[in-house]
Amino acid sequence: MKLIPDCSLALRSAALAAFLVVPVTAASALEAGNVSHFTLDNGLEVVVVPDRRAPVVTHMLWYKVGSADEAPGKSGIAHFFEHLMFKGTSTHGPGEFSGYISKVGGRENAFTSYDYTAYFQQVAPTELKTMMSFEADRMRNLVLTDDVIGPERDVIIEERNSRVESSPQALHGEEVSATLYQNHPYRIPVIGWMQEIEQLNRADAVDFYQQFYAPNNAVLVVTGDVDEATVRTLAEETYGAVERGPDLPPRVRPVEPEQNTRRIVTMNDARVGVPSYSKRWVVPSYTTAKDGEAEALEILGEVLGGGMRSRIYQEVVVKNGLASGAGAYYQGTALDDTTFAIYGSPRGDATIEDVEKAIDAEVAKILKDGITEDELAKAKKRAVRSMIFARDDQSGMARIYGATLTTGGTVEEIAAYPERINAVTADQVKAVAVRYLDARRSVTGYLLPVEDDRS
Amino acid sequence: MKLIPDCSLALRSAALAAFLVVPVTAASALEAGNVSHFTLDNGLEVVVVPDRRAPVVTHMLWYKVGSADEAPGKSGIAHFFEHLMFKGTSTHGPGEFSGYISKVGGRENAFTSYDYTAYFQQVAPTELKTMMSFEADRMRNLVLTDDVIGPERDVIIEERNSRVESSPQALHGEEVSATLYQNHPYRIPVIGWMQEIEQLNRADAVDFYQQFYAPNNAVLVVTGDVDEATVRTLAEETYGAVERGPDLPPRVRPVEPEQNTRRIVTMNDARVGVPSYSKRWVVPSYTTAKDGEAEALEILGEVLGGGMRSRIYQEVVVKNGLASGAGAYYQGTALDDTTFAIYGSPRGDATIEDVEKAIDAEVAKILKDGITEDELAKAKKRAVRSMIFARDDQSGMARIYGATLTTGGTVEEIAAYPERINAVTADQVKAVAVRYLDARRSVTGYLLPVEDDRS
Repeated sequence: MKLIPDCSLALRSAALAAFLVVPVTAASALEAGNVSHFTLDNGLEVVVVPDRRAPVVTHMLWYKVGSADEAPGKSGIAHFFEHLMFKGTSTHGPGEFSGYISKVGGRENAFTSYDYTAYFQQVAPTELKTMMSFEADRMRNLVLTDDVIGPERDVIIEERNSRVESSPQALHGEEVSATLYQNHPYRIPVIGWMQEIEQLNRADAVDFYQQFYAPNNAVLVVTGDVDEATVRTLAEETYGAVERGPDLPPRVRPVEPEQNTRRIVTMNDARVGVPSYSKRWVVPSYTTAKDGEAEALEILGEVLGGGMRSRIYQEVVVKNGLASGAGAYYQGTALDDTTFAIYGSPRGDATIEDVEKAIDAEVAKILKDGITEDELAKAKKRAVRSMIFARDDQSGMARIYGATLTTGGTVEEIAAYPERINAVTADQVKAVAVRYLDARRSVTGYLLPVEDDRS
Repeated sequence: MKLIPDCSLALRSAALAAFLVVPVTAASALEAGNVSHFTLDNGLEVVVVPDRRAPVVTHMLWYKVGSADEAPGKSGIAHFFEHLMFKGTSTHGPGEFSGYISKVGGRENAFTSYDYTAYFQQVAPTELKTMMSFEADRMRNLVLTDDVIGPERDVIIEERNSRVESSPQALHGEEVSATLYQNHPYRIPVIGWMQEIEQLNRADAVDFYQQFYAPNNAVLVVTGDVDEATVRTLAEETYGAVERGPDLPPRVRPVEPEQNTRRIVTMNDARVGVPSYSKRWVVPSYTTAKDGEAEALEILGEVLGGGMRSRIYQEVVVKNGLASGAGAYYQGTALDDTTFAIYGSPRGDATIEDVEKAIDAEVAKILKDGITEDELAKAKKRAVRSMIFARDDQSGMARIYGATLTTGGTVEEIAAYPERINAVTADQVKAVAVRYLDARRSVTGYLLPVEDDRS
């Protein structure tokens, strides 16, 4: 019986960029018409993506609430709540749902990010209705007593201790974000600040549940060996019985002011083996961008630092051998303005200054000369292909739909993705680089061993 | 007729530190017993400080609300509201109050800070009751229609344009604060972010008024040619008629996480004539400090950089001639953890690096060797004397009481101030320096001309 969920926090770090950047807004390769999208009477959006290659279904329920929706001083409640969803309801005892999944040979997981919280199970198609029943049940019937809340808060505190407090990378990353975003809640870590996690209580959990956990604030994504009619029938029989919650106000968060400064965030820590360098900018997301700028930023990230064929990797890792790893990424899937980043870590005798100079030089070249038509074509191909790969995996596909629909995107946008990517011109890529990758409004991060103190 | 109030925004800058640092928690020299402090039935706190030297009274009404109490995304509403208070009520037309003050030869002003908003008039004692009537009237009877709100918002936008947007110092200062405070609302400028000011509307103003403008959220301070009995009678006849508002929750703001990084905030701007350097730390305030740490920080600020006798000034300005100005300050009067800062600007051929090194060296000396008994004694004398000077001015005295009582302090604490300052030991001063002035959790600011680009 699994009492503590495996929950993957989408901390904004290069490490997780792979998931966040590439597949999320992808899905290109879906033959349009294959995907159904409808809404139940109680407001629950449903997306069905049949995929008959294996007798498996992926059932994912996404809530349009993440850490950036938390009230001030209550950081961590969205993630805390994700944990509480694995406790018992008035119908099913603690661990009963997880136990059942395990018994039928299924897999489950859950994750919390800035803009959404999601729960999923992968099971045989015959189990789909049972998954829906359990999931619909915990949407409203959780038992939130103090003897559930208290011990789970200790679990979260321990989770923060082990994932963040004991990791210079994580601690440094938190302060880089807190510096990059001066006003927007993407400043605040998804897991929450320790001093606020410690204060979270039953009233906070109940408020959060009442406010955000309702069918009209959720998106159900079912992929795999099913058809629309079956999903519709099962969803109506299960989720359909859950009453609509009160209407939620639009998700308007504080926006960033115009930034006018270069900022540097340095941390020295004895536990740091290999130093690392990064530079970040606030840029538009797929949801906030206009005129194809998001697609151009995606291509820019791809050409500059998306994988082994990218300029930064080729130059800094392969040719010069200065870095053990280096790259760039664009976190396009976000409700609000988001992050574009470059990063690298020195190798051998190279210093962090060497790596910084070499990476920054690659940015400077694009700012000056843009990218070539050949690079553009190859980057497009890679971007589209990565969606095909994502699509090849049921849960990857479900994630694309869930993350897009909970961050202001649409099914149509996903279908049009390859077209949108293919419309990007080299001039547009240069233009977004010039417009957004301005060192005068960037945040540079240095994570250094103690001996390499740059005071 | 003065439609636009002179409002002094207590932006957290060295420029305003003089007011914020020295006199606010001062008032030492008050012969205890002279001051009355009582509460009306509707919750209005009243402080009376007779001062018979001139036939003048200072009437100050302080509200326990400032920019740090604003809802997320509504920055600037506290200051905006200060402006709206000069518009008409259902009883008195726009400008009538100001016109009256002017007619009777009085002075008036208002100011908004992180923790409070205050309104004051200085008039002949015979006018006190009229001031109270006007002030009590606008506590509840403001006319807040769209044709009042819209034009005044334009005034505020223009104020931000002229005070902030056109000032590299102000723009840079805002981003330094936004970097220093990672979670607490002292991060956000008192005047508000432009993009949020632009969205403030009638509903925001009405909500703010209903929530915060009530006798049980205010402190009346009357200083000058009056006695307690008169003030009590007049206050009961005027303010006493205003109904108590709903109880307000405790003023609990998000607190800072543990900081682990050195941050640097650099701005290059063609309009910068003389570059400037500063370094800031988050430290306890008089309200949050324990065991005399605030008093020790006050003395530390005094010895390190409080005026011309201080170490930094003597070394960097007088002896080395490196800087045109340099110093340190502690902003002790604050509801939550606050700022300690050092700063300086080069002169002649000196570079900003020279100034930085020289100022930092003074901090390092105190971290290593502490301060001398002689310095301690002189700093205490200066601190206490500055309160005597502050007390010599009616409005200075009223400000001490108002700022202290709206940031969690008491009349008794003000009375005990000289005693508390005199109890500080040299060891305590060294201890707070070592504990709080740690470069590894500091924010350095560089404001530079364009040609001096440190990229």
